[in-house]
Amino acid sequence: MDDLKQYLTDRAAEVDAALDAFLPKARQRPATVHEAMRYSLFAGGKRLRPVLCLAAAEACGGDPDAALPSACAVELMHTYSLVHDDLPCMDDDDLRRGRPTCHKVYGDGMAVLTGDALLTEAFLVLSESSPTRRYPLAAFVAELAITGGSTKLIGGQVMDLEGEGKDLTKAQLVKIHEAKTAALLTTSIRLGAMSANATDGKLESLSTFGHALGLAFQVIDDILDVTQTTEKLGKTAGKDEAVAKATYPAILGLDKARKEAHRLTKKAMSALEPFGRKAHRLRQIAEYLLERDY
Amino acid sequence: MDDLKQYLTDRAAEVDAALDAFLPKARQRPATVHEAMRYSLFAGGKRLRPVLCLAAAEACGGDPDAALPSACAVELMHTYSLVHDDLPCMDDDDLRRGRPTCHKVYGDGMAVLTGDALLTEAFLVLSESSPTRRYPLAAFVAELAITGGSTKLIGGQVMDLEGEGKDLTKAQLVKIHEAKTAALLTTSIRLGAMSANATDGKLESLSTFGHALGLAFQVIDDILDVTQTTEKLGKTAGKDEAVAKATYPAILGLDKARKEAHRLTKKAMSALEPFGRKAHRLRQIAEYLLERDY
Repeated sequence: MDDLKQYLTDRAAEVDAALDAFLPKARQRPATVHEAMRYSLFAGGKRLRPVLCLAAAEACGGDPDAALPSACAVELMHTYSLVHDDLPCMDDDDLRRGRPTCHKVYGDGMAVLTGDALLTEAFLVLSESSPTRRYPLAAFVAELAITGGSTKLIGGQVMDLEGEGKDLTKAQLVKIHEAKTAALLTTSIRLGAMSANATDGKLESLSTFGHALGLAFQVIDDILDVTQTTEKLGKTAGKDEAVAKATYPAILGLDKARKEAHRLTKKAMSALEPFGRKAHRLRQIAEYLLERDY
Repeated sequence: MDDLKQYLTDRAAEVDAALDAFLPKARQRPATVHEAMRYSLFAGGKRLRPVLCLAAAEACGGDPDAALPSACAVELMHTYSLVHDDLPCMDDDDLRRGRPTCHKVYGDGMAVLTGDALLTEAFLVLSESSPTRRYPLAAFVAELAITGGSTKLIGGQVMDLEGEGKDLTKAQLVKIHEAKTAALLTTSIRLGAMSANATDGKLESLSTFGHALGLAFQVIDDILDVTQTTEKLGKTAGKDEAVAKATYPAILGLDKARKEAHRLTKKAMSALEPFGRKAHRLRQIAEYLLERDY
C-alpha cells in the first residue's frame, strides 16, 4: 500500500496545484471572499473525488491530465456543499477537517457567498475540459449540474434536513446516501472516464462501481461517527446521534452496518473486472477506503 | 409604447414557458425544494434580463429561439442571487416582488438550498445552448460563470455587505453596481448576441450598451427606493437609507442622480447606432427603463 500512498499524494498534489493556479488569488478584490474560498478549499482534504476522477481516466486508457478540469470541478462542488451544509441554518457544524468551519471564521453571510463562489467556479473550470469524440462539453456540464442539482446533491441535503429526528427506513436512508454521497462520487468517476472518451459499456460499469463505492463510503462514515473521537475525525464525533440523524449503525446496528460496507465494496470490485489491470488504482483506492479503522 | 408592452409580455411568456418546461415539477421529490424554486422563480418578475437576451439575438439578426437557453439561464442566476441576498445573514429582506421572501416561507436552510439549486439549474439549461461558428459552448459557460463569480455578481454583494454604514466614494459605488447589476445585464445581452453568432465588433458595442444600461438601471433603482412606497415597489422601500447603504442619491443628491441616469442612458443609446433598425427593441427597452416614474 506504500505505493498507493505515494500515488494518492502525487495525484492530490497535482489537483492542488491546478486548483491553486485556477482560483483567484487571495489578495484579489474583494479579498475576503477569495481568502474564504481558499480557506475552505485548501484545508487538507484527501481529494478523494478528484483522485477517483483521474484514476478513472487511467482505467479507460486516457491521459489523466485531460481529466484535470473535471477533477478540480468535482472538488469545488464537494467543498461548496460542505461550506453550505455546515451553516447554522443547516447542520450547524463548528469543525471541519480539524479547523473552524468557514462561517465560524468569516461569518454566515460570507460563508453563503463563499459556497456560491466555489459552486460557480466549478462550472468555470469544467468549461476548460476538452470535448472528446463521444462527449461534447454539454455532456460534462450536464453531468455535473444534474448531480449537483435539486434531485441529487441538494435534494439529499433536503431529505437529510427533513429526516432529522424521524424514524427512517433503510430504503429511505439509502436514498439519502445515494443522493448526497454516491452521486458525486459516481460523477467524479464518470467525468474522468468521459475525458478519456470511454465507451458506453465502460461508463456503465464505472457507474456501478461508483454507486457501490459511494454507498460503502457513507456506511463507513456513519460507523466512524459512532466509533471514533472528534480529534481523529477532524469533525465533531457523535454528531449524528446527538441530532437523532438516521444512520446505518442506528438502523442496522454496528455489526450489520460493517457487513453492509463489505458487501458494497465487493460489489464495487466486481464492476471493475472488465477493466483488468488498468483499474489497478481504482481497486487499490476502494480497498484503502474499506480498510479505514471502522 | 403599447407595441413594446405587447412585445415584453410575449417574450416574458416565452421565457416563463421555457422555464416551466425545464424545471423539475413542484411535486417531484424532495418536493419542498422544488416548490421553493418555483415560488421564487415564478413571482411575477418582469424578466428584464431574459428579454434583453432575446432582443440582443434579434439585434444581431439571429433567431431568438436559439437564445432561449441563455435567457432562462440568466433569469435563474438572477433569481438565485435574490434568494441568497434576501437571507437574514445578508440583506435580511422580508418582501420581494410583493410577496414574502423565500426564507420567510421555507426557512433559512431551505432558502440557501433553493438558491443553490437555481444556480446549478442555470448551468444545466445553458448546456442546452447550440454552439455557433464563433462561439463554442465553453464560451457560453465561461461567460455566465465569470459574471456569476467572486469578482462580479458575488464580489459585488461582498463589497455591498462590507460597505454598509461606511462612506463610499462615487467610484467605489460604481464598482459595486458594475459588479452587482451591470455585469449580469451585460452578460444577458452578450449571451443573446453569441447565440446569434455576433461578430467581435457587435459583441463589443452590445457590451458598452449593457454596461451603461445596467448602471442607469441601478441608479434608477436607488432613486426609486427613496421616492416610492413599499406597495408600489413590491419590496421594502427606504431600506437603503435604513441600513445606511451607499446609493447614488445619498452620494450625489436626487437631482444629480437623475442626471446621471439620463447621461448613462444616452451613452447606452449611442452604442446601438451600428445596429440600425435591428436594435429597435433594445432601444425601446432602454427608453422604457428610463421612463420609470423616478
